[in-house]
Amino acid sequence: MKYWSQTYIPTLKESPADAEIASHKLLLRAGLVRKLGGGLYTFMPAGLRVMQKISQLCREEMDREGAIELAMPFIHPVDNWVDGPRWSAAREIMYRVDHAGAGKGRSKEPEFVLGPTHEEVITPLVKSEITSYRDLPKNFYQIGTKFRNEIRPRYGLMRAREFVMKDAYSFDATDEAASASYHKMKRAYLAFFTRCGLKTIAVEADTGVMGGSFSHEFMVPAPVGDDDIVYCDESGYSANREKATSGLVPADLADAAPVGATEEFATPGIVTIAALAAAGVPADQQFKTLVYMGDGKPFLVILRGCDDLEEAKLGALGFQLWRPATPEEIEPVMGAKPGSLGAVKGTIKNPEALAGIFADQAIRLIGNGTTGANKDGFHLRHVNVTRDLAITKFGDFRTVRAGEPDPKSGQPLKIARAIEVGHIFKLGTKYSEKFGAVYTDDQKQSHPMVMGCYGIGISRTLQAVIEQSNDADGIVWPWQVAPWQVLVVNLDPQDAAASDLCKKLALAAEAAGADVLVDDRAERPGVKFKDADLIGLPLRLTVGGKGLKEGIFEMKWRTSKDVRKIPIADAETTIAQAVREAASKA
Amino acid sequence: MKYWSQTYIPTLKESPADAEIASHKLLLRAGLVRKLGGGLYTFMPAGLRVMQKISQLCREEMDREGAIELAMPFIHPVDNWVDGPRWSAAREIMYRVDHAGAGKGRSKEPEFVLGPTHEEVITPLVKSEITSYRDLPKNFYQIGTKFRNEIRPRYGLMRAREFVMKDAYSFDATDEAASASYHKMKRAYLAFFTRCGLKTIAVEADTGVMGGSFSHEFMVPAPVGDDDIVYCDESGYSANREKATSGLVPADLADAAPVGATEEFATPGIVTIAALAAAGVPADQQFKTLVYMGDGKPFLVILRGCDDLEEAKLGALGFQLWRPATPEEIEPVMGAKPGSLGAVKGTIKNPEALAGIFADQAIRLIGNGTTGANKDGFHLRHVNVTRDLAITKFGDFRTVRAGEPDPKSGQPLKIARAIEVGHIFKLGTKYSEKFGAVYTDDQKQSHPMVMGCYGIGISRTLQAVIEQSNDADGIVWPWQVAPWQVLVVNLDPQDAAASDLCKKLALAAEAAGADVLVDDRAERPGVKFKDADLIGLPLRLTVGGKGLKEGIFEMKWRTSKDVRKIPIADAETTIAQAVREAASKA
Repeated sequence: MKYWSQTYIPTLKESPADAEIASHKLLLRAGLVRKLGGGLYTFMPAGLRVMQKISQLCREEMDREGAIELAMPFIHPVDNWVDGPRWSAAREIMYRVDHAGAGKGRSKEPEFVLGPTHEEVITPLVKSEITSYRDLPKNFYQIGTKFRNEIRPRYGLMRAREFVMKDAYSFDATDEAASASYHKMKRAYLAFFTRCGLKTIAVEADTGVMGGSFSHEFMVPAPVGDDDIVYCDESGYSANREKATSGLVPADLADAAPVGATEEFATPGIVTIAALAAAGVPADQQFKTLVYMGDGKPFLVILRGCDDLEEAKLGALGFQLWRPATPEEIEPVMGAKPGSLGAVKGTIKNPEALAGIFADQAIRLIGNGTTGANKDGFHLRHVNVTRDLAITKFGDFRTVRAGEPDPKSGQPLKIARAIEVGHIFKLGTKYSEKFGAVYTDDQKQSHPMVMGCYGIGISRTLQAVIEQSNDADGIVWPWQVAPWQVLVVNLDPQDAAASDLCKKLALAAEAAGADVLVDDRAERPGVKFKDADLIGLPLRLTVGGKGLKEGIFEMKWRTSKDVRKIPIADAETTIAQAVREAASKA
Repeated sequence: MKYWSQTYIPTLKESPADAEIASHKLLLRAGLVRKLGGGLYTFMPAGLRVMQKISQLCREEMDREGAIELAMPFIHPVDNWVDGPRWSAAREIMYRVDHAGAGKGRSKEPEFVLGPTHEEVITPLVKSEITSYRDLPKNFYQIGTKFRNEIRPRYGLMRAREFVMKDAYSFDATDEAASASYHKMKRAYLAFFTRCGLKTIAVEADTGVMGGSFSHEFMVPAPVGDDDIVYCDESGYSANREKATSGLVPADLADAAPVGATEEFATPGIVTIAALAAAGVPADQQFKTLVYMGDGKPFLVILRGCDDLEEAKLGALGFQLWRPATPEEIEPVMGAKPGSLGAVKGTIKNPEALAGIFADQAIRLIGNGTTGANKDGFHLRHVNVTRDLAITKFGDFRTVRAGEPDPKSGQPLKIARAIEVGHIFKLGTKYSEKFGAVYTDDQKQSHPMVMGCYGIGISRTLQAVIEQSNDADGIVWPWQVAPWQVLVVNLDPQDAAASDLCKKLALAAEAAGADVLVDDRAERPGVKFKDADLIGLPLRLTVGGKGLKEGIFEMKWRTSKDVRKIPIADAETTIAQAVREAASKA
C-alpha cells in the first residue's frame, strides 16, 4: 500500500503544448514522465512502476520459453561494429562516445558507440564461450536501455533517443532448430502483449538492414502509428506495407503482344506522370523509370506510372546501401533529365554503367505503353514490355494499395496505421559467419551457428497501451500493467474514521493480491475524482462524506460509470471478489 | 528452481591473465561476468541475479526511509552541465556523445554527455515541479547505469567505465530538515550493507568537487582498496585519509621564540628534503615550500619537510580547481627553481602575484627551521614561523600517519586500505541556488532548497562482497545476495530416482523460501564439487551414489567442512529448518 503523499504523482490539468497525440498528452498529464530534452524522458514514480511491471511480464514470458537473462554493456567498443556486417548502414543512427581529450589526432571513428541493439556484442561473446553442439540451443535476452540518433524524435516515448528494449538472441545448430526458436519467441511475444492488455497483430515484415530470411512485426493498430499494415480478414493475411504483396498480377498472365512499332513524339514541358496523363496517356499505361544508386553504381527501377516504389523492397536486389540518384548522376548515364527517362533498348546513353534494370511485375499489365525517350522533351509510345525493355529481373517493388486482391483469398486487402511494438528476425548465419561463431557437431565438423534476434520496445509498449486504452477523462489501465490496481480515495483525510476505513479497504485489496494507492491528499473531492480518472487505476474505492456516516463506501470500475454502494461490513468479501475477478480476466 | 542446464554458468578452471585481485578472478572464474572491453563487463546470468538481488535490497531500504524511486535518462543535454556548478571540474571525467553528422562546424562542446551522477538533471526537474514548502521534503532515487571516462579502468567492476549505481537526491526546506534526511540515508546505507553481508565502516570524508558541508563514505576494509581510512578503535573516530586529522599539534602550543637572525648558507646541488637532511638538517626542522595554481593564480603551501601534502585538503581554500605549478610558472614568481624555494619575507621575487601563503599547522612545531632562500643553491637557517613567514592562513593540509594521536582519545591512529562502496553528502544550496530550485514558505518567502545526495556503487558492492567473502576454493556468498541460496547436486543425472529426489529436495528448499539451483549436468562428481565451491552457494545438498541406495542425502554449508548425512524421510523438516536458520541470521 502506498499513500499518495508518500510518492510523487504530478498530475497536470492542461497538456503541455508540444504533446500531439493522446498517449503523449496522458503520459505527461498523469505524471508518468517528464521531458529532459528531445527524445529524452525521466520516468516519474508511477511511470517507472508501469515500466517495471511490463518488464517483469516480459521476463516471465521469456523465461517460460527457456530464454536466459543477462545484461550487456550500453557502451560498445567501436571495433565490434566496424568488424560486423552492418557498420556502414548503422553508423548514421548510432551515437558516438568519446572523451574530452580524444580530439587530437583521432581517427574518424570514435572510441565507443552506444548500442542500438547488441548483435555485435553477443555474437563475439557466444563465439568465445560456446563451441560444441552440446551447448546449443541457447537464447540470451536482456531488458535495458538502447540509444538511437533520432534526428526528429516525436510522440514522447514512441520515437525516442533513449528507450527501454527487451532484446534476445538465439543460437542454434540447424536451420530447423532456429525456426523452432523463432516460433517460441513468436509465442512468447503474443503471450506477453496479451498479458499487457494490448491488442496486437503479428505481420510479415521486411528484414531490412538487420538481414536474415524472415521476420514478423507485432503491431498495435492505431491512427497515430508510423507504419501501415496490410491485412485481409478473410484469409488472415497480414504484412507490413514494406513487405506486403497483393494478387494484382495474375500468375498466369500472358505477355501482351506488341501493338505497333515504337514511335517518338514531342512532349515539351511534360516531365511528370500527371502531366502526361493530362495529355491523354493514362498513368496505368505509362512506364515510370527511376534511377537509384546501389553500393555506388546506378540501376533502374521500372514501375507503372500509377504505382509507387516501396523502397524497402529493393533490399531483395542484394545491395548493401541504396538511394535515389541525383540529377547530376542521372544525365551522364541516361542522356536525359528526369521527366524524360525510359528503358527502351538503344535509347540509354551509357547502358554499361548500369548495375541492372529491375522491373515491378505489374508493368506486365501494360499492353501498349508510353515512356520517356531519354531525350529531353520526347517520349516513346507503343512500347511493349517483352519486345522493347531489357529487364534484368522482375520482382515486387511497388506499394500495395487498399482494395487490391489478397494473394490467398482474392478478397480486397485493407490497410491500417499501426505502432510497431515488437520485431522478430530469423537471422540465419549473417552474423555468426562474420564473427566466426561456429560450433563443432558430433562428427567434429564445424558449422556457423544459426541465429535469430527478437526485440520488444518496452517503453513504447507502455505508451501503446495508453494510446489503445484511454477516454476523454484519462488513462484506462489494463489490470496487469496499472501502476497500482486499486485506488482508495479518502474524501476526509482529516477524519480518523475515514483514514481507518481507507486502510482497512486497502489491506483487504492487498490481501486479495492487488497493488493499492491511497489518495490521502488534502484536496477537494472534485480534484481527487478528476485525478482518479486521469491516472486511470482499474478499481476505485471511495470513503468519506455522507456515505461514511451511513456505513457504506463506494466502488467503481474505471471502465464503467456505475457506482456501487457497499456496506462496510461487506468490505473484505466484496473487495476480494472484485480483485480476484479482475485478475482472472487479465 | 532452476536447472544448471537451463541457465548458463560458464565456470573456468584458470583465472584469465589480466585479473589481478581475488574478487576479479572469482567474478570471471565463477562465470558471473565477461569482459567486453576495458572497464566494460557483461553480466552473465548468475552475476545478473546477484545484481538484481542487491538492487532489490537497496530499493527496500531506500523505500523504508521514504525515498521515492524514479529513473532519469542516461544521456544528458550538455547544457544541463554547462549551466551547473561543476562543469569545469567534471567535463574531463565525462563521456561526450555525438552523432556521425555532428563533425562539421560544431562548437567544442558535444550535444550530449553520459551522466556520471544526476544532480544536473534532478535539480532543474525539481525546480520545475516543486514550488511550495507543502511538497517538501522529497528524496528521489534511482538504480541505474552510470558512465565515467576512466583512463585506467582496473580490478573488474571496482573501477569500471560503465557501472550500476543507486543515486538519491534529497530536497528540504531547512538545514535542520536536510540533516534529518541525511541521517535517514546514513541509516538506510548501514542497513543495506548489513543485509548484503558486508562489513562496512562509515567514515568522515572530503566533499571534493561535489561540494557541500559534510560527507560520509562507507568503506569495506580490504588490502586491495583504493582508499586509506584512518581510525581509532578507542574513540570510534574514522575518516578517509583525505579528510583525516590527528592531534599531532597540541591546541595550546606556544609559538616558538626565534633563536637568532636568519642566515643564508650555500647548499650547492642540494634540491631535495632528503639531500638537505643528509647534510645535517633533520627533515622535521625543514620548511617544505610547494607552489600550486588555484584557478589560474599561484599560491604557496608550507609544510614540515617530513610531511606530505594531502591535496584534497586544499579544497578548504575555496579554489574551484588547483594543481601543482610547473617550473616555468614557479621561477618568475619565486625567483628560484624548485629545490631552493622558501617563504621568508623579502625573499620572494614577486609576492604580489601570489593568491596567498597557506601553512600546515604542524610547521608551528618547528622551533628553528631551515628553508630555501629563493636563490638557486642557497638556503636560510634560523627561520622562525612567527617572525619570518608571512602566513595568510594556517590549516590542516598534511597527510596523517599511523601512530599519531587520535584527536579525541589521544590513542594512536591506525590506517587501513578500504574499498569505497557508498558516499553521502550534505550538499547545502550549491546546486539549488545555481539552478534556481526555490520554494515558497508559509509566509510567501522564497528560499533555495537544501539538498543532499547519496550514492551506492551497486556493481562495486557486488564485487566487494566477493572480495570480503571467499576462500581458496571460491566464493562464499552471504545468504541474501547469493545468486541461488541452495545448490542441489545430482551425482547421477541419468538415474530417475536421483532426479526425483533432487526435485523433492529443491521443492522443500523453495517452500521454505530459498532460491534453488539443481546441478543436472552430465559431469563427473569431482567437477561438480569443484564448481559448487567455486560458485559458492550457501547450502549444498548432494544426491546420488552409495548414499542414495542407503536412503540418505548429504547436506553441507559452504562455510564449513562438515558433511551431514540426512535420511530421505527427514528431508523436508531438515531442509526447512536449515533454510529458516540461514534466513533468520542474514
